[in-house]
Amino acid sequence: MIRPEWIAADWGTTNLRIWAMDGDRILESRSSSDGMGVLKPDQYPAVLARVIDGWGKAPVIACGMVGSRQGWREAPYTATPTLVSPHLVAVPGQDVWIVSGVKQMDPPDVMRGEETQIAGLLKRMPTFSGTVCLPGTHTKWVRVEDGEIISFQSFMTGELYSLLSNHSVLRHSVGEGDDPAEFMRAVKEALADPTASFGRLFQLRAGGLVGDLMREKAGDRLSGLLIGWELASAKRYWDEHEVMVIGAPRLFALYHEALQGIGAASSVMSGEDATLAGLCAAWSNLKDTL
Amino acid sequence: MIRPEWIAADWGTTNLRIWAMDGDRILESRSSSDGMGVLKPDQYPAVLARVIDGWGKAPVIACGMVGSRQGWREAPYTATPTLVSPHLVAVPGQDVWIVSGVKQMDPPDVMRGEETQIAGLLKRMPTFSGTVCLPGTHTKWVRVEDGEIISFQSFMTGELYSLLSNHSVLRHSVGEGDDPAEFMRAVKEALADPTASFGRLFQLRAGGLVGDLMREKAGDRLSGLLIGWELASAKRYWDEHEVMVIGAPRLFALYHEALQGIGAASSVMSGEDATLAGLCAAWSNLKDTL
Repeated sequence: MIRPEWIAADWGTTNLRIWAMDGDRILESRSSSDGMGVLKPDQYPAVLARVIDGWGKAPVIACGMVGSRQGWREAPYTATPTLVSPHLVAVPGQDVWIVSGVKQMDPPDVMRGEETQIAGLLKRMPTFSGTVCLPGTHTKWVRVEDGEIISFQSFMTGELYSLLSNHSVLRHSVGEGDDPAEFMRAVKEALADPTASFGRLFQLRAGGLVGDLMREKAGDRLSGLLIGWELASAKRYWDEHEVMVIGAPRLFALYHEALQGIGAASSVMSGEDATLAGLCAAWSNLKDTL
Repeated sequence: MIRPEWIAADWGTTNLRIWAMDGDRILESRSSSDGMGVLKPDQYPAVLARVIDGWGKAPVIACGMVGSRQGWREAPYTATPTLVSPHLVAVPGQDVWIVSGVKQMDPPDVMRGEETQIAGLLKRMPTFSGTVCLPGTHTKWVRVEDGEIISFQSFMTGELYSLLSNHSVLRHSVGEGDDPAEFMRAVKEALADPTASFGRLFQLRAGGLVGDLMREKAGDRLSGLLIGWELASAKRYWDEHEVMVIGAPRLFALYHEALQGIGAASSVMSGEDATLAGLCAAWSNLKDTL
């Protein structure tokens, strides 16, 4: 019989990942495809009860899109500059707390979920100052200094890659990439001349029609062009700052490779580890107030 | 009773537009949604027979994706530099000719349909030399000199706009634009700093969440950013060359506005007029050989 002290939840748009916790120790983990995208606000209590069935009663701390306006209960954004320490909003009538996202007013930007991963990074490396890069659908570049999120910027790189490779004319020409050297050539090409990159997208299609560009190579070139383009646009974040890349293994590997390839200093941390460490930091704060 | 001398067809991916012609004179026009995208090669004869029902027998000249590898019969590309005069490929056993597309080997690029519009432009303005801009799903910039297509480049601007505004997270934030001044500001902003534009896309979403960015204004900004970005990348085509913009009215108006706004010399021609004039030029050549 598992009796968690508390329960950690990463409740995003498409998935729910949940852990039975004893302090910082994982007792058991479960997951479900009941993401925010398919739930109405009044469905959350039943989904949660089903997913934690057998774990008994324990406080739940959740991060991610569960706290958006379309989620269970809106956990309003805190505004930059803001302490990295997670800010919690209670769900009325439930033993559940949701982590607030972070907003920036000018230029406008938002994050929800990444703030918890940054809190996890600082739990592991309390003195970290520098840039955090969180690749994903909307990659975030974040300046962290003295325990505060100072500023950040989101890039639609992941979503663009997915749209272009699955839903544009390039879907006929772009396959899974497999050649790190080809990827790196495209990163450097786009970084050296990001303006010209815009005109290189259609060439991934035409190169297969009139030339001998293979699907795999086109895939390496597409992700290299987009990431190189993003790196050009985010240069102030990685130029002269140490970068910590936090994300899913395949994605953080690509960004780490690209950053190393252009001579920037970067380290990596697993996105799941960071999320869980951030939720542990939130629990440390919350338990003293219960 | 209509008895055309010949029949002109613009047979694209999603639509078929067809005209009963007497020399350069239109007797009647019809259209159908039987585009290349929904037809198998053996279905074309029946669709054509149905659409021209009552017009009697007459030679048909068709341009567009009907001549692609996935179309009725492949009309192989001619390679740049190539005469603007339409190159025709006969469909065996049919009184039908298809206009060849144009390819460029390095950098790789292709067009199919636009070559007919450029032939139409030269039928109307035989001495035209300069740049032709053909906005659409994949906007083409083409250098035309002394009756030849010298070189060209395609940009995925139209498809990117459609994907971003309908299928990305921006679909929640981007509506139909309605403010030419806002559009022009975004064009100039992107042209002045195309590298930064990549990071301004997500701001169209965040600006609505944490600020007061309206859907219409976000729509103007999205099309302005993408077109400004394209103009930066295609600069060698419009800088010091007169530009003829050929396309659908709403689209050519946007490009004409953008080009005028940045001080480039541009004129416009209706895409449908250009296609028909190009098919007329093809008929002039073909009829002497029948």
